[in-house]
Amino acid sequence: MSVLIVGSTALDSIKTPKAENPRLLGGSASHAAVAASFFSPVKLVGVVGDDFPKRYIKLYKRHRIDLAGLQILPGKTFHWSGEYESNMNNRRTLLTELGVFETFTPTLPKTHQTAPFVLLANIAPALQNHVLNQMKRPKFVAADTMDLWLNIALPDLLKLLKRLDAFVLNDGEAHQLTKEDNVFAALKKIHKLGPRYVIIKKGSHGSILSGPQGFFICPAYPLHRVVDPTGAGDSFVGGMMGYLATANGSVDRNIRRAMIYGSVVASFCCEGFGLNRTTRIKRSHINQRVRDLVKLTTF
Amino acid sequence: MSVLIVGSTALDSIKTPKAENPRLLGGSASHAAVAASFFSPVKLVGVVGDDFPKRYIKLYKRHRIDLAGLQILPGKTFHWSGEYESNMNNRRTLLTELGVFETFTPTLPKTHQTAPFVLLANIAPALQNHVLNQMKRPKFVAADTMDLWLNIALPDLLKLLKRLDAFVLNDGEAHQLTKEDNVFAALKKIHKLGPRYVIIKKGSHGSILSGPQGFFICPAYPLHRVVDPTGAGDSFVGGMMGYLATANGSVDRNIRRAMIYGSVVASFCCEGFGLNRTTRIKRSHINQRVRDLVKLTTF
Repeated sequence: MSVLIVGSTALDSIKTPKAENPRLLGGSASHAAVAASFFSPVKLVGVVGDDFPKRYIKLYKRHRIDLAGLQILPGKTFHWSGEYESNMNNRRTLLTELGVFETFTPTLPKTHQTAPFVLLANIAPALQNHVLNQMKRPKFVAADTMDLWLNIALPDLLKLLKRLDAFVLNDGEAHQLTKEDNVFAALKKIHKLGPRYVIIKKGSHGSILSGPQGFFICPAYPLHRVVDPTGAGDSFVGGMMGYLATANGSVDRNIRRAMIYGSVVASFCCEGFGLNRTTRIKRSHINQRVRDLVKLTTF
Repeated sequence: MSVLIVGSTALDSIKTPKAENPRLLGGSASHAAVAASFFSPVKLVGVVGDDFPKRYIKLYKRHRIDLAGLQILPGKTFHWSGEYESNMNNRRTLLTELGVFETFTPTLPKTHQTAPFVLLANIAPALQNHVLNQMKRPKFVAADTMDLWLNIALPDLLKLLKRLDAFVLNDGEAHQLTKEDNVFAALKKIHKLGPRYVIIKKGSHGSILSGPQGFFICPAYPLHRVVDPTGAGDSFVGGMMGYLATANGSVDRNIRRAMIYGSVVASFCCEGFGLNRTTRIKRSHINQRVRDLVKLTTF
């Protein structure tokens, strides 16, 4: 089955202590779509300007991503620039140019409205709601978010939460949303806002699922060197949704393994700037790291 | 087989946002010894003053801890006082009164010198070396440490590292020792300092083992409420050593499961002030949480 993914499609200029890379393909939807494409057909919904490099269109196509929902409008593509500190955890935004993203209204082609799996990757919750309004009885809806929306669009986000099957956020955001320091106490409170599945991402410490079958402690794949963590969270949730969309059986049965696959795709994402590494791997590389993770966690 | 444990034996006055508890039984050796006692016979080596409450001697004895190596000297017991912030991760020391600990020289009774398993819990590395000098061909030696010794006694610690089978430290200390932000890069550097097994503790994020059979990602048991994390790291390493001392087969074969048991004892430690909760559990409670952890990590 296919996954519809809406989110930002951007050009990222990323600076780390070791290197600087201008205008990489980035954005939550780009990372999530490429990650999901290893497992299932993907329909991308987003907007870019007429400055968007053709090579990135080709990149999407190489991953067999359906671009019928990608608007190309006169103007500039969303451009984000950020800088990481040497520990690769703290980053600061240097520049945000919204460009055509400022007035983005996702309108779904008819073929997209019946996609069974929907990933509302990080984007304004009003737009996430707007996309969901156009969907016809999706089987499973997941959304990601970021701290910005908790600050400036909380009512929209709370409205969205009631409509989700799964909500994915990082530990800082979970604390901000619930005022709980304890991740398990936070999970309990977030369930009360709507979603049956809540996943808290903890970067290199892995992630935690809380769902109908209890908790799952999902490890991160061990990396000796992180080149650029931008998009790792999007890759995680994209890989997870892609896996869920093609796995046989219920979401309950598959979601743990789906998280493991997402975690592995995220590990590749961190090993290169932007999508440089993720776009160079094959499904067999992913499968190998999943087997590694079994060995790394068995006791 | 028995475990010899040397470290601090203290009275801890602990303040959290919710409560204040004066003069609890504490110290690295106390926590580690009680944790190990669930699995194997323990020989405690330490020093207390003549103000040391009789009820704490009784507590050790209830856990069948051999006290032949516990010196009771005229003077005051080591007293530490600390305060936790509401997130339970950041703590600051309010007071340190060394008392009889200031001139502590551990001298091992003959019966103790042949203990096959040795845990050098957190204490000055010169004293850890001094204890090791008295041991006769121990089967397995592990040591813990703290940031203080990295600052003021690094040469002693480096000398110790060459003599250890296993070294246990937390992620902040690993960074301080190696200057590596990445935990796996840090592990590699620490092996070069001596120990075959290196374990990095990450608090509520679990721990990582690096050993002859590769890495092991050890989860922390999920806790909805942390009352007092003091001694959790000591409980972890104590439980691990206790389990190793009685398990059949090689350390290589048992160390992962030993870490899981240590992790579970540490979880109980966090649920009460000082040793209040740990001293109220039975082996069956530990076994139940180990079974829970299997379910929480299976995919």
